[in-house]
Amino acid sequence: MKLADLTQRAGEWLRGAGPMHDVVISSRARLARNLASQPFLSRCNATQQREIAERLRDEILAAGIAKNVFYVNVAAAGALDRELLVERHLVSRQHAEADHPRGVAISGSETVAIMINEEDHLRIQVLRSGLRLTEAAEEITQIDDRLEQSVEYAFHSKYGYLTACPTNVGTGLRVSVMLHLPALKMTGEIQKVFRAARDMRLAIRGLYGEGTEASGDFFQISNQTTLGKTEQQIVDEFFGQTMPHFIEYERRAREGLMKSQKAAVEDKIHRALSLLRAARLMSSDETMHLLSLVRLGVNLGRLPEIDLRIVNELFLLSQPAHLQRVCGHEMNDQQRAEARAEFIRRRLLQDN
Amino acid sequence: MKLADLTQRAGEWLRGAGPMHDVVISSRARLARNLASQPFLSRCNATQQREIAERLRDEILAAGIAKNVFYVNVAAAGALDRELLVERHLVSRQHAEADHPRGVAISGSETVAIMINEEDHLRIQVLRSGLRLTEAAEEITQIDDRLEQSVEYAFHSKYGYLTACPTNVGTGLRVSVMLHLPALKMTGEIQKVFRAARDMRLAIRGLYGEGTEASGDFFQISNQTTLGKTEQQIVDEFFGQTMPHFIEYERRAREGLMKSQKAAVEDKIHRALSLLRAARLMSSDETMHLLSLVRLGVNLGRLPEIDLRIVNELFLLSQPAHLQRVCGHEMNDQQRAEARAEFIRRRLLQDN
Repeated sequence: MKLADLTQRAGEWLRGAGPMHDVVISSRARLARNLASQPFLSRCNATQQREIAERLRDEILAAGIAKNVFYVNVAAAGALDRELLVERHLVSRQHAEADHPRGVAISGSETVAIMINEEDHLRIQVLRSGLRLTEAAEEITQIDDRLEQSVEYAFHSKYGYLTACPTNVGTGLRVSVMLHLPALKMTGEIQKVFRAARDMRLAIRGLYGEGTEASGDFFQISNQTTLGKTEQQIVDEFFGQTMPHFIEYERRAREGLMKSQKAAVEDKIHRALSLLRAARLMSSDETMHLLSLVRLGVNLGRLPEIDLRIVNELFLLSQPAHLQRVCGHEMNDQQRAEARAEFIRRRLLQDN
Repeated sequence: MKLADLTQRAGEWLRGAGPMHDVVISSRARLARNLASQPFLSRCNATQQREIAERLRDEILAAGIAKNVFYVNVAAAGALDRELLVERHLVSRQHAEADHPRGVAISGSETVAIMINEEDHLRIQVLRSGLRLTEAAEEITQIDDRLEQSVEYAFHSKYGYLTACPTNVGTGLRVSVMLHLPALKMTGEIQKVFRAARDMRLAIRGLYGEGTEASGDFFQISNQTTLGKTEQQIVDEFFGQTMPHFIEYERRAREGLMKSQKAAVEDKIHRALSLLRAARLMSSDETMHLLSLVRLGVNLGRLPEIDLRIVNELFLLSQPAHLQRVCGHEMNDQQRAEARAEFIRRRLLQDN
């Protein structure tokens, strides 16, 4: 298994399956951990950074944490490969763009990705399609336990796991879901979602995490507090109390639209699909917008001929680094717009 | 033959055939004539207006001027039927909206239409697809001669045929062509066409004659002077000297676009066709815009599967009165937008 094998398909989390997949794209759990034997990364010298990277790489590969795990030396990877990892949500943008020794271990299905030397020595991520936070949290706990058999983490009896940034201290656990909320966006009710999230001390971001705009129809919602709660409490609150409201709210907005503006919604949906199948030039932004409408159409049962998996994959595979990998050479904006249109057209016509 | 039979098809002039049909939609010749025995229409009383209408109807139907001629009593026709005649270019808007006795005689192929009691007692029109001004002028002269055998026209030995408006005095002949100039519009060079036409004392109008904006990609160009020239001179100048320049200019613009912006032009063309085939709501304006691009695509050889005749017909059949006739009932804006989208979609999918 190597990086180049990834460009023709999407990871498990984009399968378009799992509970509540009409609204929930994916569920993600993330743990921040640091070695007790080394300083936090920002206080390490180059030798220590290299020691951490090599030690953790070896420990992870030896621990048998998941199937078909492979390791990418991010420091040695080319710019396009690093961008590819960001597009696949396997590393953060910060990690891709840093300039110290670092890497990422990835399971074959891409449900597990462990960044080494991001902000913390270890950032363990489990990503699953649909609303599966409990599963994701259970899997991440197993991985954490497995690694802890051979590695001593920095831990404080009162504060819990110690992390480079105080907001992660405690369990070090963050959970998040990626939601598709096109109907709330269309009706303008999305503003209420923002207010509700703020009141519940949840963070809302765009498709690519911290610092990205919550533009388009996709929203990543995550917990902000990790201190003073157990892993179980974090997951239960988020999964059991918060998410059902958001999901229900979007579903009602969809039903409302189909009652009050059926023709207008169907018009948007069918236009979007037809443009994806016909255009000769297509920007990233337009692709996201049109795919979002098609995804809505599939989930409303208006496009029975379209496979949700293909739509989800296109979100990923139509992005710049993926496109360039598929085409086998670097491209400028205009060339990418042409290649993107052709790629999408072929995928959707095959699918028909 | 009656009016209701017309709604399922277009007249000969929209066949998309004839010389230079890539740029020239249709050629039109028009003669203005008045009976010597009656005052101009604006000076007639109601009795005289009725006498003129009945006399000319009988003379035309008896004269055998063309095949399958039928007469529509416009004064007695409903609003929708009158609108239908305007959309088909068989009567002018003024004629449709007047409130005195009047009518129109139409040949089965719709190449000939003779309005009675428009601005003049008679307005004879011959309309042909493509650039066929000479043919149109010959046919209109034959019709004129045939009618003159039984009717005495108002004629002055010095000024020629007398007409209600002095701009038509002389031969009473107007010739015009309907041009499709999408490439000149895209490149912005259309402004040069406007200037050239003004310098040559030609009038440029939109798709529906006097008073309509020359918006969109269709332009009706006509001669403005009829006094002091013979019919032959008018046709020769317009046909032989003026039109070839305009046609050549548009063709060069198309070639230029396909060299310098091939992907962008193909993108526009394929998007337009796909939207026409997919939309669930479609306004008149958007229809015109998209059909214009598809027409360009067919003429550039980019859409070999599309029949130009179908595209030309859709310009006509997607208009409000036609749509309502086809659907069999009156509709508001929203209903028309739905019906239009469905009608276009079916025609274009049948065609495929």
